Amino acid sequence: MRCGPVNLVPISPRDRINTVTSSSTAFLTDKYELTMLEAALRDSTADRQCTFEVFARKLPNERRYGVVAGTERVLEAVRHYVFTEEQLATLDFLQESTIEYLRRFRFSGHIDGYREGELYFPYSPLLTVRGSFAECVVLETVILSIMNADSAVASAAARMVTAADGRPIMEMGSRRTHEYSAVTASRAAYLAGFQATSNMEASFRYGIPASGTSAHAWTLLHVNEKGEPDEKAAFKAQVEALGIGTTLLVDTYDISQGVRNAIEVAGTELGGVRIDSGDLGAITRRVRAQLDELGAYNTKIVVSSDLDEFTIAGLRGDPIDCFGVGTSVVTGSGAPTAHMVYKLVEVNGHPVAKRSRGKATTGGTKKALRTHRASGTAIEEIVYPFTAPRPDFPHLHCLELTHPLIRDGEIVSDQPSLSEAREYLAQQLVSLPWEGLALSRDEPAISTRFLGF
Amino acid sequence: MRCGPVNLVPISPRDRINTVTSSSTAFLTDKYELTMLEAALRDSTADRQCTFEVFARKLPNERRYGVVAGTERVLEAVRHYVFTEEQLATLDFLQESTIEYLRRFRFSGHIDGYREGELYFPYSPLLTVRGSFAECVVLETVILSIMNADSAVASAAARMVTAADGRPIMEMGSRRTHEYSAVTASRAAYLAGFQATSNMEASFRYGIPASGTSAHAWTLLHVNEKGEPDEKAAFKAQVEALGIGTTLLVDTYDISQGVRNAIEVAGTELGGVRIDSGDLGAITRRVRAQLDELGAYNTKIVVSSDLDEFTIAGLRGDPIDCFGVGTSVVTGSGAPTAHMVYKLVEVNGHPVAKRSRGKATTGGTKKALRTHRASGTAIEEIVYPFTAPRPDFPHLHCLELTHPLIRDGEIVSDQPSLSEAREYLAQQLVSLPWEGLALSRDEPAISTRFLGF
Repeated sequence: MRCGPVNLVPISPRDRINTVTSSSTAFLTDKYELTMLEAALRDSTADRQCTFEVFARKLPNERRYGVVAGTERVLEAVRHYVFTEEQLATLDFLQESTIEYLRRFRFSGHIDGYREGELYFPYSPLLTVRGSFAECVVLETVILSIMNADSAVASAAARMVTAADGRPIMEMGSRRTHEYSAVTASRAAYLAGFQATSNMEASFRYGIPASGTSAHAWTLLHVNEKGEPDEKAAFKAQVEALGIGTTLLVDTYDISQGVRNAIEVAGTELGGVRIDSGDLGAITRRVRAQLDELGAYNTKIVVSSDLDEFTIAGLRGDPIDCFGVGTSVVTGSGAPTAHMVYKLVEVNGHPVAKRSRGKATTGGTKKALRTHRASGTAIEEIVYPFTAPRPDFPHLHCLELTHPLIRDGEIVSDQPSLSEAREYLAQQLVSLPWEGLALSRDEPAISTRFLGF
Repeated sequence: MRCGPVNLVPISPRDRINTVTSSSTAFLTDKYELTMLEAALRDSTADRQCTFEVFARKLPNERRYGVVAGTERVLEAVRHYVFTEEQLATLDFLQESTIEYLRRFRFSGHIDGYREGELYFPYSPLLTVRGSFAECVVLETVILSIMNADSAVASAAARMVTAADGRPIMEMGSRRTHEYSAVTASRAAYLAGFQATSNMEASFRYGIPASGTSAHAWTLLHVNEKGEPDEKAAFKAQVEALGIGTTLLVDTYDISQGVRNAIEVAGTELGGVRIDSGDLGAITRRVRAQLDELGAYNTKIVVSSDLDEFTIAGLRGDPIDCFGVGTSVVTGSGAPTAHMVYKLVEVNGHPVAKRSRGKATTGGTKKALRTHRASGTAIEEIVYPFTAPRPDFPHLHCLELTHPLIRDGEIVSDQPSLSEAREYLAQQLVSLPWEGLALSRDEPAISTRFLGF
């Protein structure tokens, strides 16, 4: 198959967003949230109006920016945060009155925050969850699990997309991460600009283009009766089944012979060859020359083999048409979690904050905007009190970052689709100061300033 | 709550092992597996009798050993590898005959391999999957996803358990990883010797003891009418709701004052105090002295705050009774995937192997055993042909590592339970040469030797 968006499965992603998690999300929760709830119900603090905030104290590995992902999945998870009778029956450590509270539980508060595909920086108030203590405290784990996992992948993937400099990247890391983490990692990578996924369920659930080539097993399967390798038979069968546009994997035995065999079998209109091992720079230059010499000028070169943003950047000058990325993207390329936290910042209108060393927080419910020069370049992230009027920055363009996501327990209807979020992110990346897209370790691309606290 | 196994939820784990994944696992698959299947059906190679092997070329980060986890989940996933009509309807890139094949698909081959809780080393033949090419090739992704994710967590967790030197560790990392990865990470950590999990779903599904303390939000919630902190009110309410055996989080404001407040409110029989920030060595020594001075000799000290095997080892001399570990264990402590691969090694009785640079494999279906001295110390991993007689090592104890797991598509009934696997692993760790338990980077604890290839 061609490396690129082929065979788009026509589905309505929203309908299937939680095929697997459409059953209750209520047990994707830490036990202490339920025991705190019980204690709060007993001492009458359960009804205190609270704000919890999701934010990250820093970007992992001194990266320049983060990418928000998971917001839509969070909204669905909150909607499905309903306890089943089977779950309730196991809660033998809680009083009957607490269980009765959980039996009737539905989040009825408000969530505001950054949309998917938005950039973020240290202390950006990514989600602002308002409601009674009881209804907010129980959401901590499931909200953080989703935001931390999805944002970690999207943040790594966006850097790879930048490094690939316009050449398509296909996500093929399902086998390197939990079977369902694989599905949402595909989604996050696509959001960040990857062009396709290998994962069938991600394609099914989210409408992401599915793509793929073939495995070494395919070539190895083709032995003659004596058990001797027959690479040409494998190539011939693949081309017959999948068409001339397919991509043949040429490095099972000898790459030069593999390329010769591929063109001999498929002709010069072969879609592509894939190389999955060795020094990809040197090899692809040699293979490109060989293909051109054979007249296969349009045959593309696809590479894979433990690529990450740094190796992709290092291959920028080489004749590569498409990258296949696996392990590094699904594991966040050295940062498998985004280190976001869920902190209580306001109680009954009073800002609250802990003072733990190295983990201090700023109290109060917050909103944010990002200022831009007339040229469009981002200047800084401004965080201000939620109920304060929007700060005025004459001559600067202000992008509001905090959007209503849930009102009175209901998902606000104008959430961006996955492809809208993908497009939005691409625009936002362009707005960063140019050094903000560098892969090297450094300060965040823009700074975050608190106004009015 | 006490940090330790409390409130064991009484369930039958086997019944619920796939509450979420009990629907089809067939789309947890890479597209290329389905297109290879189609090509194989067309060129009549689909029925060739094949062996695929799961193994790892190396241990991550130069660790000394790996821990096998996920095997039982693999068996369930294979059992549920059945295509639904809804899935089939989206496979518009396949021919009708291929779809018909998938409609009737049930794995009918054999799987042999290492049981959960077994140690492994580079090139240990962890799973040996035998059957037609068609029925084996499609299982690649789901098998690897499970084995890579679960073994990564178990391998990291086992090192933490060794570092903790008998003191209990509680897993509390759900918020740092995908919401379902969190559930199976709890399972893998428990298998490796963790004592409890914070995760409700893991407790529900797998019968793992659930535990927890309270969050900073609990203390912050307790402000007086002026919005001023009232730590004592928080402690009082927690003790009233959860009993004197509870663990109070004392580092929201000032730790010394927090400890004083805790004992003043709860008395000297308070179960524990938790510290989640700062220099845990210095602080716990001070807090222990303070608790003893106050007469709270039995009050335990629980610590958390970005612990991993190295920081745990560094705290070995400090007065800590229980560790809470989050991020590092669920992300494999620097190795979020186990880098296992699924390779075709035999076709119609002929060994096959690719020759790709740095990724060469050894052909042929394999079995393994581990030799031990009379003292019980492991010597080496012996890999030999599946059908060959077991090699003879006079005077050595041989542990067979390859067990039948699936026969003719059916799960062999004598699989170890999670607690049996947990106990087995603890025994196996004792069998390693003493330097094999070191945390430092080095060679694998024992070497792997191929006999008869």
